[in-house]
Amino acid sequence: MITAVAQDAVGAAVRRRPGRPRDEDIDGQIVAATLEIIDAGEEVTVSRVVARSGVSRAALYRRWPSLTTLIAAALDVGRMVPPEYPDDVDLRDALFDGLGLGESGVALSVAASGYAEERFRQRIRLVMSDRALQKAYWQSHVSRRRVPLLNALRAGVARGELRPDLDVDACFDAIAGTAYYQIVVRGDRMDDPAVAARLRAAVEVIWRGMVV
Amino acid sequence: MITAVAQDAVGAAVRRRPGRPRDEDIDGQIVAATLEIIDAGEEVTVSRVVARSGVSRAALYRRWPSLTTLIAAALDVGRMVPPEYPDDVDLRDALFDGLGLGESGVALSVAASGYAEERFRQRIRLVMSDRALQKAYWQSHVSRRRVPLLNALRAGVARGELRPDLDVDACFDAIAGTAYYQIVVRGDRMDDPAVAARLRAAVEVIWRGMVV
Repeated sequence: MITAVAQDAVGAAVRRRPGRPRDEDIDGQIVAATLEIIDAGEEVTVSRVVARSGVSRAALYRRWPSLTTLIAAALDVGRMVPPEYPDDVDLRDALFDGLGLGESGVALSVAASGYAEERFRQRIRLVMSDRALQKAYWQSHVSRRRVPLLNALRAGVARGELRPDLDVDACFDAIAGTAYYQIVVRGDRMDDPAVAARLRAAVEVIWRGMVV
Repeated sequence: MITAVAQDAVGAAVRRRPGRPRDEDIDGQIVAATLEIIDAGEEVTVSRVVARSGVSRAALYRRWPSLTTLIAAALDVGRMVPPEYPDDVDLRDALFDGLGLGESGVALSVAASGYAEERFRQRIRLVMSDRALQKAYWQSHVSRRRVPLLNALRAGVARGELRPDLDVDACFDAIAGTAYYQIVVRGDRMDDPAVAARLRAAVEVIWRGMVV
């Protein structure tokens, strides 16, 4: 079976002409260069991206009129919007699993490697010094990753499983916020077993407050 | 009535000798200079603190052998450990009020002025780039501010008002984390009415999950 993604890849390969890089190649080079600059702890500037990526200044400006959206995209490399949940999903399980997925999701994705945790800390540092970047990153990336879990919770309200007056956004904020608090305030590492225990205890409390 | 604080002030004035600054004056100058450097968005260095405070390098090193603890102290200026709660405190009220006090407490203290919010963002930026500073700030400042509310919650467990198996630290993390999420992830301002509504909704859910 050829999936839509595979078809896209085939189409791109067919369209490719020797001697002229594909648009996707150029975008990939630009984003990769941006990420290298971020990981090096340097400030992202047009000159640095041009120097590292080998892409011309004109091509960079044409594709990314704003450095802010480029940085937001680079910060999100490797993360994706999780799929929608099936109708019969166990919501309690979804909340616990959610700690390894999406944005509530700092937990396991960050625990996966020390490198990812450093990038996470760097991301917070960047958005704290630039509110426009923070808003761009929230709107185009983080808030989109929340949608599947929020939809599943709303369905739970409609089914009468969760309280009719439930503010599902606030519940998501509480769960994700508990995870952020571990890194941002306590300065703990997400692979610390004490952190995992606190997260599980908090989700247990929040879940009890959500059900009818 | 002369309070203990007033007596201290009188005592300090009496002890003061002209021509030689009091230790408290020197410490105040050092911390104030450090805060000015932080607020200006500059890196705190010994040379900058010496230049701005007018205190000698030797006096600075004698009082603050580590810049990390000096920065942590400066970041905490104007905040204090809240008093212990009375035995008959209404715990639900205490949790909601807590959003205006202490650390859960980002909310109202940050909402109080745009300047305080900028300093808050600057503080997160600093601790995200320096884990030693973050741990020092957590241990000597943030974690101490949590104690009175944690004690009140433990008393609630002992009274049988809250669930016997409750992890009060995790509950505190969930409430404070919800507040942090608004600033650190959403990039919202704490005086935004939508933020206050989400915080109230989250505390309501968490409280329901805490009671027997």
